[in-house]
Amino acid sequence: MSGRVRVLVHGASGRMGMTLLRLAADREDLCVCAAVSGRPPKQRVIDGVPYFGASELAGVPAFDVAVDFSLPGGFDALLALCLKRRAALVSGTTGLDDAQRAALESAGGSIPVLWASNFSLGVAVLQDLVARAAAVLSGWDCDIVESHHTRKLDAPSGTALTLGEAAAGQGATPHYASIRAGDIVGEHLVQFTSHGERIELVHRATNRDIFANGALHVAARLAGRNPGHYAIADVLSVDAA
Amino acid sequence: MSGRVRVLVHGASGRMGMTLLRLAADREDLCVCAAVSGRPPKQRVIDGVPYFGASELAGVPAFDVAVDFSLPGGFDALLALCLKRRAALVSGTTGLDDAQRAALESAGGSIPVLWASNFSLGVAVLQDLVARAAAVLSGWDCDIVESHHTRKLDAPSGTALTLGEAAAGQGATPHYASIRAGDIVGEHLVQFTSHGERIELVHRATNRDIFANGALHVAARLAGRNPGHYAIADVLSVDAA
Amino acid sequence: MSGRVRVLVHGASGRMGMTLLRLAADREDLCVCAAVSGRPPKQRVIDGVPYFGASELAGVPAFDVAVDFSLPGGFDALLALCLKRRAALVSGTTGLDDAQRAALESAGGSIPVLWASNFSLGVAVLQDLVARAAAVLSGWDCDIVESHHTRKLDAPSGTALTLGEAAAGQGATPHYASIRAGDIVGEHLVQFTSHGERIELVHRATNRDIFANGALHVAARLAGRNPGHYAIADVLSVDAA
Amino acid sequence: MSGRVRVLVHGASGRMGMTLLRLAADREDLCVCAAVSGRPPKQRVIDGVPYFGASELAGVPAFDVAVDFSLPGGFDALLALCLKRRAALVSGTTGLDDAQRAALESAGGSIPVLWASNFSLGVAVLQDLVARAAAVLSGWDCDIVESHHTRKLDAPSGTALTLGEAAAGQGATPHYASIRAGDIVGEHLVQFTSHGERIELVHRATNRDIFANGALHVAARLAGRNPGHYAIADVLSVDAA
Repeated sequence: MSGRVRVLVHGASGRMGMTLLRLAADREDLCVCAAVSGRPPKQRVIDGVPYFGASELAGVPAFDVAVDFSLPGGFDALLALCLKRRAALVSGTTGLDDAQRAALESAGGSIPVLWASNFSLGVAVLQDLVARAAAVLSGWDCDIVESHHTRKLDAPSGTALTLGEAAAGQGATPHYASIRAGDIVGEHLVQFTSHGERIELVHRATNRDIFANGALHVAARLAGRNPGHYAIADVLSVDAA
Repeated sequence: MSGRVRVLVHGASGRMGMTLLRLAADREDLCVCAAVSGRPPKQRVIDGVPYFGASELAGVPAFDVAVDFSLPGGFDALLALCLKRRAALVSGTTGLDDAQRAALESAGGSIPVLWASNFSLGVAVLQDLVARAAAVLSGWDCDIVESHHTRKLDAPSGTALTLGEAAAGQGATPHYASIRAGDIVGEHLVQFTSHGERIELVHRATNRDIFANGALHVAARLAGRNPGHYAIADVLSVDAA
Repeated sequence: MSGRVRVLVHGASGRMGMTLLRLAADREDLCVCAAVSGRPPKQRVIDGVPYFGASELAGVPAFDVAVDFSLPGGFDALLALCLKRRAALVSGTTGLDDAQRAALESAGGSIPVLWASNFSLGVAVLQDLVARAAAVLSGWDCDIVESHHTRKLDAPSGTALTLGEAAAGQGATPHYASIRAGDIVGEHLVQFTSHGERIELVHRATNRDIFANGALHVAARLAGRNPGHYAIADVLSVDAA
Repeated sequence: MSGRVRVLVHGASGRMGMTLLRLAADREDLCVCAAVSGRPPKQRVIDGVPYFGASELAGVPAFDVAVDFSLPGGFDALLALCLKRRAALVSGTTGLDDAQRAALESAGGSIPVLWASNFSLGVAVLQDLVARAAAVLSGWDCDIVESHHTRKLDAPSGTALTLGEAAAGQGATPHYASIRAGDIVGEHLVQFTSHGERIELVHRATNRDIFANGALHVAARLAGRNPGHYAIADVLSVDAA
């Protein structure tokens, strides 16, 4: 892409949407050309960004990629718009039903699509490193320890399970341990142990902004790609080539 | 290779040589068919392994790979023998002069050759992971902390510098810190830090046997390969494919 | 003290002062009865707290303890007020000159006084643990590694030096290493290494609020004490008894 | 004690006993004046140390402290000997029955006695630090993670439980996680987490010799003390005073 990538933020009034808008203002690789929230906004323009209600979606200006952290209710309309406009879609919306997942799957034939549950770039890199290490370190013991704040109820974390699948896909048998303490944003340790030596691969998140920054980073690199389904690691590794 | 790889241990009376012989006895992927030390041995056979003096090198039985941790003085004869027998060579001998290095370089046209300063498999894997992480994490700060026992005089460690080169080769600018304390066998941390998140890649060695085990592991996989120069990571990653 | 401790916040318009006021609102052990900033405030009452300019200091209501994060210029007047009112003083103001330090020293004969450069409770605890460990682990190597954001210019950090003094006071000889990376709020590792074993004592700060919270915590416990000079660890350990 | 403390090693033919004898030879604060094993020894003197069978216990020369890592069967005779000779007793023998424990308890009225399950000095120090930290950090979350080799069947480790009791005794509520991997000798992490900050207290053992060395260290300091029951931390902290 030459010039700034034009981003539509979908779910603009949510916690993640507001963070996306705040952080996008500081980036030079993209600009937000439209912010869409469920209800029609009281203010039409905030900090130079035009706002739209979900019912006004058809009227948004041209965009290269939609970044969607919203609710399943508005997902179908957004996906249809991306297909019509031939724009890329980056989504972290959870709770999609089977039909919506199928529609997302099918959309990959026409536009670039990326769905993920964790948009930290560091976690994406860690996932890649874990797979690579597990492929070579056959026979080493594999342990995953994840730490999160005490309000997190599920254990192991979804990210820990994703990391474990990356290791298991290469033949490792991961064991999990979970710590719930204080206000830890998120830490993941994947450890490979043999006799006399050990490798520890760690990701520490200390600020929730990294998830929004990761989504924007990915969006800027997904726009203009060939149609298809992408993972964060795909975008990063192509970038590295 | 079918069956056990036949290994010649060169430098059998040195500290590393004795460790190689002790550990080789427990492996199923290889057997030691000859142990060569500088002086002709008093005992001709120890634990079923025939011993030879350096002057008797021509008379050693057939072998697939030589594992050499000795002194520069005996290197030329060993290299000539490997070339004559079409056997692979794994060497960790330090202090080779320019002519010897050139001969080693040239030998790669005829036999598989691998020289390394650190035969820990974990360090080889870490080096690969560091390069991969650095390639993707452009703009992240890169720091390397290495810890070793108090008798180690050089700092940063050679391994730390090798890891730093792996990062620098992908555009990172590593900073180094060194700790000398107690009897630490060797620990290396390579850390990539951004805003709000951090990746830590760590290798901890707790037992010196890993270096001999790594050399044997590599030897078993190098035997029978095409002629050429190999790095430990090459052998490992081919293995993983 | 029965009931809530009455706190005067001095330096209310500074970054630390504003954080103190925000966090004090959530605490049950104290209440802010006056906020003092350099210039007379435009708003006389904010969120129920009465504001005063430095020139109006004599008119503040009764308070038990002053918490001071301001500039040296206003320090003398505040100290005089605390002495007159027989109130405690907690101060983190830096840059005091010799006369001011002498006045602070002398004030300890009349009121409880606590000055510190780092109000993290965790760091105060770490300092106590380091002294205790160093006292017992004679002959073990002592290393201190501190990590901070890239905008921090001094190295080692003042806190690392304080920790090192705690160790040196018990006979240890600390070595320092510093890492400057990303936006790390502050991490300190004090490590004691012997042959075959090692103790690592670590403090990690992930949020700057801990410094304001620590100051409030200390203030609530200093009010009503006997006159004297206190360190954070004093207040904490008396608390633990 | 002036001069070298005279040590009787009980259980001299066991794994720990042999390690005690090997390490004692390098120490300057003590000398082994008798080694006692179950069966009468074939060699009467090894490396200058006189050996005795259990049946010859009455004939051992004068000693200041007995160090006992043996089996319950020989315990009663050793305890009787220590009482008769007014010598101190350091014991790590496990599996004592109720009557033996009662006898040990009673012996504390006449001689200095120390029984422990883990003689690593570092672990003893960690236990002291954990209690101290827990006393001050009320309201912080407490987590304990222990790592050991894969042959260790019990979890959490006895040492982890001892550390947890040290924390719980000061009001903390520890949660445990266990890792079994490779040949890890033993690692214990006790972590206190609050909002925005965290303290991590770690002990890493990399060599089993530390347990024997710890027992000898304690023995040299227990000899000549007043009668009573001692913990390792007692001996260390008195030492520090």
